[in-house]
Amino acid sequence: MEQYVWKADPERLQRQIEALAAITNPEKPGWTRRPFTSWYAEGRQWLREQMLDAGLQVEIDAASNLIGRLPGTDPELKPIMVGSHTDTVTGGGRFDGIIGVLAGIELARSIHASGMKLRHPLHIVDFTAEEPSEFGISTIGSRGMVDNLPPDMLERTDVDGLVLRDAIQLAGGDPEQIPAQARRKGDVALYLELHIEQGPVLEQTGNKLGVVTGIVGIHRYRVTVDGEPNHAGTTPMAMRKDALTGASWLVLALEEICGRSYAEPVVGTVGKLAVEPNASNVVPGRVVFDLEVRSLDVPIMEELARLLAEKAEELRQTRGLSVGMELLSKSEPIRVSAEVRSLVEQACAQTASTIELPSGAGHDANQLARIAPIGMIFVPSLGGRSHCPEEWTDYEEVALGVEALTKAVVQFDQGK
Amino acid sequence: MEQYVWKADPERLQRQIEALAAITNPEKPGWTRRPFTSWYAEGRQWLREQMLDAGLQVEIDAASNLIGRLPGTDPELKPIMVGSHTDTVTGGGRFDGIIGVLAGIELARSIHASGMKLRHPLHIVDFTAEEPSEFGISTIGSRGMVDNLPPDMLERTDVDGLVLRDAIQLAGGDPEQIPAQARRKGDVALYLELHIEQGPVLEQTGNKLGVVTGIVGIHRYRVTVDGEPNHAGTTPMAMRKDALTGASWLVLALEEICGRSYAEPVVGTVGKLAVEPNASNVVPGRVVFDLEVRSLDVPIMEELARLLAEKAEELRQTRGLSVGMELLSKSEPIRVSAEVRSLVEQACAQTASTIELPSGAGHDANQLARIAPIGMIFVPSLGGRSHCPEEWTDYEEVALGVEALTKAVVQFDQGK
Repeated sequence: MEQYVWKADPERLQRQIEALAAITNPEKPGWTRRPFTSWYAEGRQWLREQMLDAGLQVEIDAASNLIGRLPGTDPELKPIMVGSHTDTVTGGGRFDGIIGVLAGIELARSIHASGMKLRHPLHIVDFTAEEPSEFGISTIGSRGMVDNLPPDMLERTDVDGLVLRDAIQLAGGDPEQIPAQARRKGDVALYLELHIEQGPVLEQTGNKLGVVTGIVGIHRYRVTVDGEPNHAGTTPMAMRKDALTGASWLVLALEEICGRSYAEPVVGTVGKLAVEPNASNVVPGRVVFDLEVRSLDVPIMEELARLLAEKAEELRQTRGLSVGMELLSKSEPIRVSAEVRSLVEQACAQTASTIELPSGAGHDANQLARIAPIGMIFVPSLGGRSHCPEEWTDYEEVALGVEALTKAVVQFDQGK
Repeated sequence: MEQYVWKADPERLQRQIEALAAITNPEKPGWTRRPFTSWYAEGRQWLREQMLDAGLQVEIDAASNLIGRLPGTDPELKPIMVGSHTDTVTGGGRFDGIIGVLAGIELARSIHASGMKLRHPLHIVDFTAEEPSEFGISTIGSRGMVDNLPPDMLERTDVDGLVLRDAIQLAGGDPEQIPAQARRKGDVALYLELHIEQGPVLEQTGNKLGVVTGIVGIHRYRVTVDGEPNHAGTTPMAMRKDALTGASWLVLALEEICGRSYAEPVVGTVGKLAVEPNASNVVPGRVVFDLEVRSLDVPIMEELARLLAEKAEELRQTRGLSVGMELLSKSEPIRVSAEVRSLVEQACAQTASTIELPSGAGHDANQLARIAPIGMIFVPSLGGRSHCPEEWTDYEEVALGVEALTKAVVQFDQGK
């Protein structure tokens, strides 16, 4: 088996990242390139030029994804796909998504320039609108690619009344052709994505590369704690039914439950909470909060919900409060197969210090997992920050990620 | 000493309360008679007629308070004053404030009708605008009566641009004359006020009358807990600085501290709390909440703040959070003198089952305490509710309060 030895150039990657970062809405904080805006279109124009320069054939698919193709030598083989996205949240950063697309272009450029021919076709994809969009959905482009963008989603409108179907058309797509063009199970040999970790684990454990074991599922609940809204001056402590002290106790119970040791990592968060009537001189009568638990393991998530329901029952009995817990949504976890995990693990370990970890956030890979084996590589996020102007990954670290990704592609190509 | 035996008539009081309740803004929920509105003026017109019918001489003072006077027999003696207010909060009830004014009229009527002459003049007052007003201040009339309504307050405007000075003028007052007409220390022999408890203590202890030991002081603080706003999926539990779990711990600490036993009753409340960024998928980076403690005893309130500051320090050390605690306001408690407490206690105990308790809310009595000895009597609030349409006190209980108040006035008059 031929060993492909190539060093990604951090300075070249820096120039690429900075060039795309310069295409940003100047009226918004940080770096802001929202999908379907003029800045997004301009960024794509620049990306198209980079793809052409790297030797790729460029096209836009029915869902408006920008795709650069390198042909393979074996007509029997389905493509290896590498992708991510170049839209940002409002006030976002320069790395999230972006480095995954640029990594694809860089690895295609290096392979093309080296004269080596892959057996598989190689598709480098800039997926449309991965971040939560003005249409209330995320991963629009990757949904479209796998035919998971049904008509009711296409009919959604943004605040200006623009219909998603028309937005996709304006971005060069062909919404009517989405089902016909969609990739089905078996149409993609392997999907790989390089992404920033968006968390502190690589940094705090001193590792450069993360082999993603899977993408966690998310179970979200809305909890309503009802007590009695009483006068804060005239109601003695022992005669209160304070919804906020009750809710506080539950918030701490969730933290304690999720801090225990389980067979897979879990996280649980109360991020959103509202107090009623929310006046400094009224004992809170009602608190409503949203909680979520995330893990790769569904039975563990169900166990967490059961433990929390027990705590809610304890709250009812000890404080005389009424507690309701309503399921808001469940997204299922995705596990990276043992084969892909091993492939990516080898590629990473040959490149830099490596650990395995789950992805706590969703990605375009979630959609691709519907039709193909997927794998992901993480590079460190400074301070664990993302979706903010402070988002940062050293260019040397991005380069290590690009190298590991390239090795994984080549090794997969040679192995099959 | 002559014993004044008189039974207040619950049915007559019911008719009076219902007649005033009928004068309400029909476009607002519950019972709404906001100060300086046409409904307020109409209510006052009705009150004036009741005062005249009870044998009182009626006038409006410089601060627009409606006052009914009964002359005394001893020209050396300063007046006994009985008062409360007839404005309501928006969506309020039929009893708060109102029964105090009607009680004054009823007791004056009974004394006048009995032919008995008091040695002291008797002043029955409907104080203007006791509840928090559109001008951002409460107890406007009683402030004016004791010269605690300085020019900067008189220049305040409501949302329609009406200046408080002009509003008082339109209500029949004479703002320029407020300082000249103001009552000074020694000008009032005794101020008494009958009020609903606005809390659950009388009801839950099975008592009909409450002898108020004082009006609590209020110390308010704004607490800011700063952590790190991290991604709820990608930040392991052990690597979080969650401002909400930290704040929850402090909310429970305040409850625990205020639930301990002190020499005087205390209450402590977090009624208002806000989470930032308040998104279900972000570990909260900041929580800001307002807390207040109330007690008759200033050293105890300061001890509570010290204990809470210790807890804040513990939070800094155990969770690495930053905690700020800013004093928002301090109002000083008012203690009822031993003499007045004993007078009111006797009058109540001769009438019905009685306990002593502090007032956890402010009243017009707070202002009168600047210039005169004050005393208050509470009657039960069903379910501890007030400032809402459900506010309720049985008419028999109101009648017991009126009787006890009358006894206290007569006994004070005879005792001096």
